Amino acid sequence: MREVLAEAAFELFLERGFEQTTVDDIVARAGVGRRSFFRYFPSKEDAVFPDHERCLADMTEFLETHGVGDAVDPVDAVCDAARLVTRMYAANPEFSVQRYRLTREVPGLRTYELSVVRRYERTLAGYLRGRYSAAQASEGVVAEGALRAEVIAAAVVAAHNNGLRTWLRSGGQDDADAAVDHALALVRNVWGSGAERARSAPRAEVAVSEDDVIVMVAPKGAPLWRVVQRIESALGED
Amino acid sequence: MREVLAEAAFELFLERGFEQTTVDDIVARAGVGRRSFFRYFPSKEDAVFPDHERCLADMTEFLETHGVGDAVDPVDAVCDAARLVTRMYAANPEFSVQRYRLTREVPGLRTYELSVVRRYERTLAGYLRGRYSAAQASEGVVAEGALRAEVIAAAVVAAHNNGLRTWLRSGGQDDADAAVDHALALVRNVWGSGAERARSAPRAEVAVSEDDVIVMVAPKGAPLWRVVQRIESALGED
Repeated sequence: MREVLAEAAFELFLERGFEQTTVDDIVARAGVGRRSFFRYFPSKEDAVFPDHERCLADMTEFLETHGVGDAVDPVDAVCDAARLVTRMYAANPEFSVQRYRLTREVPGLRTYELSVVRRYERTLAGYLRGRYSAAQASEGVVAEGALRAEVIAAAVVAAHNNGLRTWLRSGGQDDADAAVDHALALVRNVWGSGAERARSAPRAEVAVSEDDVIVMVAPKGAPLWRVVQRIESALGED
Repeated sequence: MREVLAEAAFELFLERGFEQTTVDDIVARAGVGRRSFFRYFPSKEDAVFPDHERCLADMTEFLETHGVGDAVDPVDAVCDAARLVTRMYAANPEFSVQRYRLTREVPGLRTYELSVVRRYERTLAGYLRGRYSAAQASEGVVAEGALRAEVIAAAVVAAHNNGLRTWLRSGGQDDADAAVDHALALVRNVWGSGAERARSAPRAEVAVSEDDVIVMVAPKGAPLWRVVQRIESALGED
C-alpha cells in the first residue's frame, strides 16, 4: 500500500508537477481513501522520499553494530554508513535520477531534502561524538570531541553528496559507489585512516630541533591523520 | 519601518509564541498596514532573521574584494568571511540568544535557518571553487576543485556554527569571536595556512625510502596542509 501510494504520487508529480498535484489526486490514482495517504506519509513531500526513514534507521543500526571497538576507525565507520545512502539511490537509478531533476525544480522539495540531509549529518556526528569522547572525561575534551565530530560529519556528508550528485548528473549510468568512494577519499585521507593502514596503526616519530626544523620519520603505512596529529602536538610542546 | 516591523514581530513571538502570532497581530503592534509587512518580509520566518540577506550580500562583497590574489589563502578568506556572521550575532547578544532559544522550539524556524545556513555554505563553496580551479583547465581538475571546495565550505560552516552555538549557550556572555576562532582553527590547521605562516610559505621536503619509511624535514613555520600535501604526493609517486 505504501509503495503503491508512493508510485502513484511520483507518477502524478512527473505528469502534472509537484505543486499542481493534490493528495486527492494521489489517492484517486492509487484507488484508496484519503486517510490511507496520511497513515503512511505526513505530507506530500514525504511521498517523494519514501525510503529515507528506513535508511536513517539502518544507518543508526549499522553504527551501533559495526562501529564499535578500538579496531574500527571512526571515520571509516561513518564513510561506510554514508554508503548506505548511496546504495539506496543506486538500487533504483531511474527513479533517483527523475527525483533529482524534480527536486531541483521544486523549492519545497529542496527544503525537505535539506532537512533529511541534516538528519543524516546529526546521526553521523552523534556517533563520532561518542567515539571521540568515550575514553576521556574532562569538559574541554568533550567539547573538542563534539567540534571534531561535527566538522567531520559535515565533511563526510558534503563529500558523499558531491559523489552522489556526480552519479545523478551522469543519468545514473556510471558506478554510484565508485563516484562516492572517490569523493570520500578526500575526507578519509585527511581525517581517517585507510582500513589497511588502521590494522597496523603505525605512528610517526617527530622531532622539533632548536633551530626550528621539524624532522619526521614514519612507516609508509602510517595513517596520515596520526602523522598530522603527531606534528601538531610536537609543535605545541615547545 | 523594516526595523520597527521586525521588533514588533519578535516581541509578539516571545509573548505569544511564533505559531500563535499572525501577520495581522504584527502590523497592528507596529501600527502599519498589512501590505507594509510583505513589502519588507516574504514570510513571518524572514522577520525572525532580518539581517541574513544583508550579511549574505556583505559576504559575497567581502570575498570579491578581499579574497583575490595568490597571497590570500582561500581557507583564510572563507574563515574571515564566516566571521561576518559571528559579528552580526555578536552585535546584538540579547536578541541573538533569545532568537536561538525561540528557534530551537519552532520546527519551522529551524527549517528556515537550515536554508539560510545552506546559502552561506554555497557562497563560500562558490568562492573556493573559483580559487581551486582558476589556474587549471581540465575537466577532472575542475571536478576535484569543486569537491574540495564543497568539503571545506561544509567544514568551515560546521566549525563556525559549533563556535557560535558555544557562545549562544553561554548566554552571549563570553567572547563570540574567540569561540568561533577556536573552532575554525581545527579547519585551518588541516586545510588552510595560518596568515603568518602563509607569508613565508615554506615547504616540506619528503622522501620515501625503499624500505617503506617516509622521512620529512620542514621548517617549523610550514603550513600543515602543505606538509600533508607533500607527504600525500610523495606516497602517490611510487
